[in-house]
Amino acid sequence: MKVGKQSFRTIWPDPRCKFVHIIDQTQLPFAFKTLQIHSTEQMAHAIKTMQVRGAPLIGAAAAYGMALAMLEDESDEYLLSATEMLKNSRPTAVNLAWAVNRMLAVLKVAPHNRRNFTAWREAAEIAQEDVTQNQRIGQHGLGLIKSHYQDKTFNILTHCNAGWLATVDYGTALSPIYAAHDAGLNVHVWVDETRPRNQGAALTAWELGQHGVPHTVITDNAGGHLMQQGLVDMVIVGADRVTANGDVCNKIGTYLKALAAFDNQIPFYAAVPSPTIDWEIADYKNIEIEERDSGEVATIQGLTADGSVQTVRLIPEGSKAANPAFDVTPARLITGIITEKGVFSPAELVKLTLKSD
Amino acid sequence: MKVGKQSFRTIWPDPRCKFVHIIDQTQLPFAFKTLQIHSTEQMAHAIKTMQVRGAPLIGAAAAYGMALAMLEDESDEYLLSATEMLKNSRPTAVNLAWAVNRMLAVLKVAPHNRRNFTAWREAAEIAQEDVTQNQRIGQHGLGLIKSHYQDKTFNILTHCNAGWLATVDYGTALSPIYAAHDAGLNVHVWVDETRPRNQGAALTAWELGQHGVPHTVITDNAGGHLMQQGLVDMVIVGADRVTANGDVCNKIGTYLKALAAFDNQIPFYAAVPSPTIDWEIADYKNIEIEERDSGEVATIQGLTADGSVQTVRLIPEGSKAANPAFDVTPARLITGIITEKGVFSPAELVKLTLKSD
Repeated sequence: MKVGKQSFRTIWPDPRCKFVHIIDQTQLPFAFKTLQIHSTEQMAHAIKTMQVRGAPLIGAAAAYGMALAMLEDESDEYLLSATEMLKNSRPTAVNLAWAVNRMLAVLKVAPHNRRNFTAWREAAEIAQEDVTQNQRIGQHGLGLIKSHYQDKTFNILTHCNAGWLATVDYGTALSPIYAAHDAGLNVHVWVDETRPRNQGAALTAWELGQHGVPHTVITDNAGGHLMQQGLVDMVIVGADRVTANGDVCNKIGTYLKALAAFDNQIPFYAAVPSPTIDWEIADYKNIEIEERDSGEVATIQGLTADGSVQTVRLIPEGSKAANPAFDVTPARLITGIITEKGVFSPAELVKLTLKSD
Repeated sequence: MKVGKQSFRTIWPDPRCKFVHIIDQTQLPFAFKTLQIHSTEQMAHAIKTMQVRGAPLIGAAAAYGMALAMLEDESDEYLLSATEMLKNSRPTAVNLAWAVNRMLAVLKVAPHNRRNFTAWREAAEIAQEDVTQNQRIGQHGLGLIKSHYQDKTFNILTHCNAGWLATVDYGTALSPIYAAHDAGLNVHVWVDETRPRNQGAALTAWELGQHGVPHTVITDNAGGHLMQQGLVDMVIVGADRVTANGDVCNKIGTYLKALAAFDNQIPFYAAVPSPTIDWEIADYKNIEIEERDSGEVATIQGLTADGSVQTVRLIPEGSKAANPAFDVTPARLITGIITEKGVFSPAELVKLTLKSD
């Protein structure tokens, strides 16, 4: 999508397949900087520190992380150690394991001297599939929005960032919004700031602003009240993992918004590419929830009056903080899952296994 | 309560009744500073800028604001203009109107030359009544905690600050917690940071820490997940207003926690002195919700590494923010209201009108 007037993806290989470019998302929205990633270790670090983040982008980044490994050494040993390193960088993200396993399956059977070539081709394919999937998610979501749309501002609430910055391009939760905006519908987005890392306030607001979509940032506390007041017509979030029965694991706080949407009879959708659905987990209690550094809660990063980015402490010395990064929204609160293959209620989700692409 | 080793209240008159001391709560938790308030206008400013905040403390502060007016000029005209100025400083807080009206009723019938004396005496009485009420709230709440307590850590979640800093002393929501801690029960408090003004992270964490109560700061997003995990045994919040049928108007985000508590069958209490109950409003839709400055969402204040307090911007230039300050939790989600007169379910609340103090 556009940054200023220039089109970007969030990740793209050097044309000679010697390194990979990423956007350093930890610098947004205050500075737009790209980085060159030259090794698997650098890619694992970029995933871990959330320079790249968002489930689909993490998948593509991990795939390119495998390609960077094969560039250096095409041996089985190196292949397996890259697999391990990448999988451990963000344990909750199912796309990461999915992409790494797909790369591994292809590379294991490739002749050693073809592994480098094969890896870069497969990673590019994973990235392109994400773009195509997200475009389709946008079109299916646009259909949903049109079915609820009346001749007035249509207010969509979203949590965290599941925009193009969270994917290779287009986004998941925001793809229907971009599609609706581009189709001339009058959409406005309530952007949850999404503490502790403020991906909503920093990333979603930034990318919506760059694209010209009307939006308003709110605290994570405000959404329930706005729903009670009739100011939210639909909720669309992304997801890091969806279980086979339709439970949605997403950024911490999603569950609270789903409860409020349910209480106010507002449709609540998760938009995901189908690889985000983990067919092996039926019970969300088996999902491992990442506990991140408590410093993310104790401090926050922002722009000072003099234009520098500073981290400030929010809690008293001597107070502890806890930082569970995700929660699970039970399927009973979910209206539907928007995928590249169509929109499915949790009960219908099993149909997805029957559909070919 | 204690700050370091010294006992404080949040507001106290100069012994000669010439001015009033307050704690400047906008400086907490990074600096403990007291201020002298010399005029009604200064007091209205302190209320508006939240140097004093919390419904009960606002009531006492407004009462002293009236006393400061009478110190200057005991005329009817001055009395009415002080009334107006104070009532407009925070429109949502029913205690403010309650305290100002009580002062007005007493002062209107007092001889002009006794109004100054009468005002300081009445304000002191309002402050002392708050302290006594809060002690009783603590004892009633302690009974509740004991009735749920088992021989392990008892986890209480609270939102915003309804501690002694929000009152003259003891607090409302935190009064039962202090009582339980002082009685030797093993209580631990999950402290919602409470964006946008972070009264939880800044004030609740600070005062719990000063008193030695174990606590952990969490983002406003985390509470639902902790409840799903069985890590919350009770929720206690304060309230700015409770309607006659038990709807609770409190800091934005309270409604979301009440939904989560209900969904996980966790008892959810609001602790309030009975003047917080607005018998004239039966339907919460008639409560005016204060929309505060969007700058509170767009920015945040914290401590830099070099020890200075700085405000940093969180959202991109060009993005808007909205800042509704309160929400209303419908009575159906409330287990009970803890008052100085006992604990009442919303359905039983009407009994309060029958009880004499």
